[in-house]
Amino acid sequence: MTTTSHPPESRHSESELRTSWARERAELAGAQRPKRDRLVHEPPPASPPGTLVIENTNRPKIFVIDYDADVVAEKEIESVEECIPYLIDDRPSITWVDVRGLGHKPTFERLGEIFKIHPLALEDMVNVPQRPKADVYGGEHVLVISRMAQVNEHCALRTEQLAILFGKTFVLTVQEEAEWDVMGVVRERIRAGRGTVRTRGADYLAYALLDAVVDGFFPVLERMGDHIEDLELEVLEAKRPMSKPIHDLKRDLLTLRRAVWPQRDLVNALLRDDNPMISKDTRLYLRDTYDHAVQLMDMIETYRELSSGLMDLHLSGMSNRMNEIMKVLTIISTIFLPITAIAGIYGMNFHHESSPYNMPELDWYYGYPMVWLLMLASVVGLLSYYRRKGWLGKDDDGR
Amino acid sequence: MTTTSHPPESRHSESELRTSWARERAELAGAQRPKRDRLVHEPPPASPPGTLVIENTNRPKIFVIDYDADVVAEKEIESVEECIPYLIDDRPSITWVDVRGLGHKPTFERLGEIFKIHPLALEDMVNVPQRPKADVYGGEHVLVISRMAQVNEHCALRTEQLAILFGKTFVLTVQEEAEWDVMGVVRERIRAGRGTVRTRGADYLAYALLDAVVDGFFPVLERMGDHIEDLELEVLEAKRPMSKPIHDLKRDLLTLRRAVWPQRDLVNALLRDDNPMISKDTRLYLRDTYDHAVQLMDMIETYRELSSGLMDLHLSGMSNRMNEIMKVLTIISTIFLPITAIAGIYGMNFHHESSPYNMPELDWYYGYPMVWLLMLASVVGLLSYYRRKGWLGKDDDGR
Amino acid sequence: MTTTSHPPESRHSESELRTSWARERAELAGAQRPKRDRLVHEPPPASPPGTLVIENTNRPKIFVIDYDADVVAEKEIESVEECIPYLIDDRPSITWVDVRGLGHKPTFERLGEIFKIHPLALEDMVNVPQRPKADVYGGEHVLVISRMAQVNEHCALRTEQLAILFGKTFVLTVQEEAEWDVMGVVRERIRAGRGTVRTRGADYLAYALLDAVVDGFFPVLERMGDHIEDLELEVLEAKRPMSKPIHDLKRDLLTLRRAVWPQRDLVNALLRDDNPMISKDTRLYLRDTYDHAVQLMDMIETYRELSSGLMDLHLSGMSNRMNEIMKVLTIISTIFLPITAIAGIYGMNFHHESSPYNMPELDWYYGYPMVWLLMLASVVGLLSYYRRKGWLGKDDDGR
Amino acid sequence: MTTTSHPPESRHSESELRTSWARERAELAGAQRPKRDRLVHEPPPASPPGTLVIENTNRPKIFVIDYDADVVAEKEIESVEECIPYLIDDRPSITWVDVRGLGHKPTFERLGEIFKIHPLALEDMVNVPQRPKADVYGGEHVLVISRMAQVNEHCALRTEQLAILFGKTFVLTVQEEAEWDVMGVVRERIRAGRGTVRTRGADYLAYALLDAVVDGFFPVLERMGDHIEDLELEVLEAKRPMSKPIHDLKRDLLTLRRAVWPQRDLVNALLRDDNPMISKDTRLYLRDTYDHAVQLMDMIETYRELSSGLMDLHLSGMSNRMNEIMKVLTIISTIFLPITAIAGIYGMNFHHESSPYNMPELDWYYGYPMVWLLMLASVVGLLSYYRRKGWLGKDDDGR
Amino acid sequence: MTTTSHPPESRHSESELRTSWARERAELAGAQRPKRDRLVHEPPPASPPGTLVIENTNRPKIFVIDYDADVVAEKEIESVEECIPYLIDDRPSITWVDVRGLGHKPTFERLGEIFKIHPLALEDMVNVPQRPKADVYGGEHVLVISRMAQVNEHCALRTEQLAILFGKTFVLTVQEEAEWDVMGVVRERIRAGRGTVRTRGADYLAYALLDAVVDGFFPVLERMGDHIEDLELEVLEAKRPMSKPIHDLKRDLLTLRRAVWPQRDLVNALLRDDNPMISKDTRLYLRDTYDHAVQLMDMIETYRELSSGLMDLHLSGMSNRMNEIMKVLTIISTIFLPITAIAGIYGMNFHHESSPYNMPELDWYYGYPMVWLLMLASVVGLLSYYRRKGWLGKDDDGR
Repeated sequence: MTTTSHPPESRHSESELRTSWARERAELAGAQRPKRDRLVHEPPPASPPGTLVIENTNRPKIFVIDYDADVVAEKEIESVEECIPYLIDDRPSITWVDVRGLGHKPTFERLGEIFKIHPLALEDMVNVPQRPKADVYGGEHVLVISRMAQVNEHCALRTEQLAILFGKTFVLTVQEEAEWDVMGVVRERIRAGRGTVRTRGADYLAYALLDAVVDGFFPVLERMGDHIEDLELEVLEAKRPMSKPIHDLKRDLLTLRRAVWPQRDLVNALLRDDNPMISKDTRLYLRDTYDHAVQLMDMIETYRELSSGLMDLHLSGMSNRMNEIMKVLTIISTIFLPITAIAGIYGMNFHHESSPYNMPELDWYYGYPMVWLLMLASVVGLLSYYRRKGWLGKDDDGR
Repeated sequence: MTTTSHPPESRHSESELRTSWARERAELAGAQRPKRDRLVHEPPPASPPGTLVIENTNRPKIFVIDYDADVVAEKEIESVEECIPYLIDDRPSITWVDVRGLGHKPTFERLGEIFKIHPLALEDMVNVPQRPKADVYGGEHVLVISRMAQVNEHCALRTEQLAILFGKTFVLTVQEEAEWDVMGVVRERIRAGRGTVRTRGADYLAYALLDAVVDGFFPVLERMGDHIEDLELEVLEAKRPMSKPIHDLKRDLLTLRRAVWPQRDLVNALLRDDNPMISKDTRLYLRDTYDHAVQLMDMIETYRELSSGLMDLHLSGMSNRMNEIMKVLTIISTIFLPITAIAGIYGMNFHHESSPYNMPELDWYYGYPMVWLLMLASVVGLLSYYRRKGWLGKDDDGR
Repeated sequence: MTTTSHPPESRHSESELRTSWARERAELAGAQRPKRDRLVHEPPPASPPGTLVIENTNRPKIFVIDYDADVVAEKEIESVEECIPYLIDDRPSITWVDVRGLGHKPTFERLGEIFKIHPLALEDMVNVPQRPKADVYGGEHVLVISRMAQVNEHCALRTEQLAILFGKTFVLTVQEEAEWDVMGVVRERIRAGRGTVRTRGADYLAYALLDAVVDGFFPVLERMGDHIEDLELEVLEAKRPMSKPIHDLKRDLLTLRRAVWPQRDLVNALLRDDNPMISKDTRLYLRDTYDHAVQLMDMIETYRELSSGLMDLHLSGMSNRMNEIMKVLTIISTIFLPITAIAGIYGMNFHHESSPYNMPELDWYYGYPMVWLLMLASVVGLLSYYRRKGWLGKDDDGR
Repeated sequence: MTTTSHPPESRHSESELRTSWARERAELAGAQRPKRDRLVHEPPPASPPGTLVIENTNRPKIFVIDYDADVVAEKEIESVEECIPYLIDDRPSITWVDVRGLGHKPTFERLGEIFKIHPLALEDMVNVPQRPKADVYGGEHVLVISRMAQVNEHCALRTEQLAILFGKTFVLTVQEEAEWDVMGVVRERIRAGRGTVRTRGADYLAYALLDAVVDGFFPVLERMGDHIEDLELEVLEAKRPMSKPIHDLKRDLLTLRRAVWPQRDLVNALLRDDNPMISKDTRLYLRDTYDHAVQLMDMIETYRELSSGLMDLHLSGMSNRMNEIMKVLTIISTIFLPITAIAGIYGMNFHHESSPYNMPELDWYYGYPMVWLLMLASVVGLLSYYRRKGWLGKDDDGR
Repeated sequence: MTTTSHPPESRHSESELRTSWARERAELAGAQRPKRDRLVHEPPPASPPGTLVIENTNRPKIFVIDYDADVVAEKEIESVEECIPYLIDDRPSITWVDVRGLGHKPTFERLGEIFKIHPLALEDMVNVPQRPKADVYGGEHVLVISRMAQVNEHCALRTEQLAILFGKTFVLTVQEEAEWDVMGVVRERIRAGRGTVRTRGADYLAYALLDAVVDGFFPVLERMGDHIEDLELEVLEAKRPMSKPIHDLKRDLLTLRRAVWPQRDLVNALLRDDNPMISKDTRLYLRDTYDHAVQLMDMIETYRELSSGLMDLHLSGMSNRMNEIMKVLTIISTIFLPITAIAGIYGMNFHHESSPYNMPELDWYYGYPMVWLLMLASVVGLLSYYRRKGWLGKDDDGR
């Protein structure tokens, strides 16, 4: 396997990624354009499948939560070895090993040994980005690759990969960065003993985590919805060029779609497969998660259509303003060109002493007032012709 | 489950939601833009699945209709407890418990206990909005989540969620608001004993309700159809900027589509599943409902294509008017620019005493009339050139 | 069932419906825009499924054709009762009861009794419009709801619903209006004994009728094809604004598509179902009808793409003409603006007696001719610059 | 069956059909627009299915090729009867009856009798155009309706229907016209004994013919590809209006797509069906033909997308040229309007003797040169403002 | 089989093919437009299926890598015969015969004999281009036709066909050109014994090669992504006409899509088929390759949508610039046309001695200053009217 994980620096700049509306504010503030979310991972040459590509040497933070219906033990451990006692104790407790950060290759290799993870599974957990998916390894482990999304206080969209591997009595989660995730709600519930999570198996915990990931998309989409509504108003007001923000919105929606669509498929795969690892009861809950993922897809597709409509609205608005500008230019020309022409005629220097036909008007008693009348008449005539054609009327009434 | 129900105020403003054409009238009257139908529900942190999120403390109105072929009893009850006698009586009657409004959490919790509703089912009934769907719980209950649409006298589109849960002898319906629903036609039929509803089971009642929901979309779409026809005329008349109304129409159609599409799927799911809860006879009727849902989809898709065509028509119309404006500007320029230029030439002050070549025309006997002729000739020449190119001809005949 | 049939007046105006190209002629002749084909039927409140909604009290015309290989009896009957002898005679004859017009409710109720039609089937036959479909009722009756299209001598497109219900020995057809249908070819064949229709069963007659319906679309589409070809020429000639006719064409194609698409599905349903009502031999013929329906779909989709292309062609043509107009305006300005400016300069009144620098040109011997040369040079210079940029060249050669 | 074959004259003009690029040359040469390929066949009234509609009385040319591994006999026969000996001989030879031209009804009726062709099959072979398809009749005959395409030396696209009917020991092909087909390569191979065709059954011969038909599309598409490349260059050069050629290209691609898409389906149908008529070995070869048909589809879809892109390119190019024209107009106006205005001011006739404020500039010593400076300054100022805005810079550098 | 391989010269120019961004640089440097990747292969007349069409007489380079867990032998062989010993040795080694270049027909015919390749399989390996696919021949050989992509140091996209045929103990690869491929990483791994490739069967080697091919697309797409980002910036800066580069980008994406889409299908086919040739373990790895192919498809589709958005952005930008140009023209006209008109009026030569009404203004004491005021007032009035309409304000603030 030849997938490279991003080095920590680039990952950090990725975590700073802001969605279009944040980007704009940043740009107005003169900030640098942040690096875009990479779609591609470049394989290093000649690495066999199952190779872990970790260049970062920072140890990840590892938390263990071990619980049964009665007791919860929670601890941050320094070394992977410390989680072994929790796994092999004779109590039928569920152990959640929560690895935050993708660094220090030996840690992950040791994890692979402790949990007996298939090399391909371990590679998928560690080498990011992977496409969200669910796979069963050896009938004993289920690996779910998922993608979390979050908006922070600066409206910035952050996505990071979350790998959930679970067996009979344990759940192992690996996330890209230590700083944030959407799983806090599940930790809360375990600590407080809310709901039935404490009385159920590892499959239910895995479900709860996946559900938290899917539900984490809803606030992001709500933000998107508000943004679309704002853009719509702005497009109609036409105060600034809108094609860039609309394009950015479309790209953000594409990114979300690429994250959500396979998520739906993976939940479906978990539901469909006759997997003894997932109890019938948990399946019922997963159906609920599936419904939510479908609802997310619906929303994203709706937003995508709305954003296409926004571009049409914008183009039509620009066309409309062009028409208005042209109308004004035409009216200005209509008023002043005839005046200039008539005035030009009576500015000619024909010698009226050479011929009685040479501009006798210049000597008429009412010559000058008549020229004024002529100018007025031509302008009024043209304007009323426009009004009859509905141009001026429209400009007054319709706009 | 982490879905929040909207607090009653926001739900109320949602119920005031007006479709685009109503919105426009409202805007002309200086009214505020009403809040848009939310697509997203924000989950509260750390709530386990099955949590009912009801912050509203208003008790819902509850009606019980208990009937068999001979007798109908109808009563508004104050407390949920009052419906128990209807459920456990030894008569083989059908009991329809009709809950209107989503408030007062204890009421719904008690409902869950009385009807032994699965926590996930109860959550879906209470936490709105859900995607329309049909689920079977424990082989005993069928839950149908549906969405009603109605236009009121002000052309306002209202949608609200309707949950239909039915077992062997009862139907429980939960709707978002107490004020309106589309189920009046079914109540009428039960009271009057029209049709066969009184002699059939709970599954038939559930069908009848679902059928009323689906049929309730037809008047809404008829309104849409009229609106499209009006817009088409307006686009051709081009009295006002049409891109906003067309965009609003498209959004309304998207909303309807998102409501109807899953409706079709849920009817199909009820038809397809080998569900012992639904009798073979009712299945025949459901097939009819399915046909209607498909017909709705057909209509919505047709309207969507028509509205896309409207935008094209509008853009082409604007382009057309631009052409006309430009033509007028060109003709105006064509008439007056040559005149101005010629008049300018004979307005020069060359001293004809300095040279015989200096503007001898000014002394010619017919100089001035000849200049007039020259002006006329240049204008007529250009205009006839245009006519030969088909510009003026088109302006006269074609438009 | 809550579907309303259109009252006869509205149905009549629907029958007057003309497609776009007829509409245009009518509009040019100052005629009223005819009412559009309704997509929606408004259900009356509180009617149970199976309700026949017939407000028209005109009795339909009823014809009976009773035939076997040897004899054909054909008769118009006054009352439904008269068809009973044909049905119960001991001869193994096929009886085709041909009901033309949807009025007089008791007639249809009696029909339902005589033929023992399922209430839902009867409703679908009578309440129009229904989506084309094929259903089997009780393993004894097959109901086919279809839609006929015809162009009359005024190029008007007429569509009406045709319901075909057949059992072992009878076919019952119900059409919306008495005046026209596409089944004449089948009547002809029965009377003349052409082909094998007389020696086969009711399923073959039903097939023959359905085949006539499907084949009836071909002349309509041929008309459409001619119309598209005409529009293409007109778009290139650009004699009149074409966006309205193209939009109308698109709408007509949408209407046809909505009629044909489900037709294909219904033939497919008849083919696929293991229906003992349809003999293996007739299935072979139905396959042929299916091929024709698919061919219709192909054509309609091709026409739809062509009509989209027409709009592009039209928009590009308008853009092109705008370019030409702008070019002419620019050339006019280019010729006359420099002349006006130069003439204006030598029209200034600087007193050459005040300074030797004040317009000494006015006293030069060749001053005036030189100005003419200057004007000519500036105009020729600009025009040759344009020609070098390819503008004028293009105008001459390319267009 | 009610399909009309085209009368020979119209078919002839159809054979003269030229694709867009040929059409253009023809149009430039003042030639008539040739009739388009008809999509529709108009059924004559009241003809039962299985009716052969042949009005042409020209006898078709009939060739018989009878071969086994050792011997090939090839003969043009005058009457259908002559082919009977080849069919009933006791040698296990394969007989290919090759009928070229669709005329002389008795011939085809006799063919139907000799080969015992099902009436519907015979109808499909004779009444053109049919949609390409493959059908099995009575488990003994396989009918393949296909469509050949060819470009002749004048770049004209010709399509004609080819019907291939084969049984155990014979293949009967019927083509529309006698003049050309794409089956020459197969005849060559039989005569020369190249490949294994001589040692295999009738199914292999049918495959070989179908393969020749599919492969015959490749040169046509190569031509299309060249044409697209040429159009691309022309669009960029913008020497002539390109929307018509692009539209024609799109229509030609639609035509090809309508011909190829069902071809793929028919090969797939032959592959999929458990048809004892086609040997397992031949199936392997058909898979190859299927791959080629898919490759054709890929190409056509790619070309369709490219042609859509061409239209965008063209529209954008026109928009671009409009911008350039407008820029030139603006610059012309910018240069000459200020000059005209300033010159106009000093062309006013205020009497400086009436007031010291009346145009004292006219008496200044450097008045006239200063006006020149003023004019120059205003023009240079505006133009440098444009350059700062990037207009002129862009015009020079970017274009 | 009638597929022609390209003669070596044309293949060479194809290998020089540069993607759009490289093409542009080349064009700027005055280079020739390189020949485009041909989509079509022209069949020679009358060649039976299975014909190898090789006109090139250059012998291909042939390398043999023979390995088991312990030993690796690698050798370039001169003649095909030399590979026989590797194949028939009694060691259970895997033999990879790596043929580079498509020339010298006898070599390939001999290869076919040595490996007992089905004629159709051999034809597909040799006659390029084929659509990527996977076929099983005789249950013993699996043929995978694939397409490699690579960017060289000059950003040029190169694609060439790679055929992988494998049996129990050998893998035969045939590539179009000798110069480059993407399989170096696999050779590296075999030589160095990295990963498990040396301990596994021929199916695993085939997988490893296919995986290298699929992974080879990632850097190409990364390049595409960077290019899209660059284009986006350029479109916003609008320094040069962008429609050509966007069109080229779209065409390149189409090409990639045509290469990748069937690749995904072929991996799926290998996974799905119950093929005894592929071990269960290798299937697990192939699933990984499938995921990567799907990820490639996702990326390409995303890029396609982004490139469509780019075109919209570009068109909207052009429209925007047109609006700006028109605004400037209108403002220029607005400033100078009124001045010219007013100046023209007072440049008329009415004889004030003939009438007191004839231009008395010319004698007023403040006549000339008042005219200046009048001019100023009219210009300021119009400009402030524009500012009130938001034109100038927008020009200052918004842009």
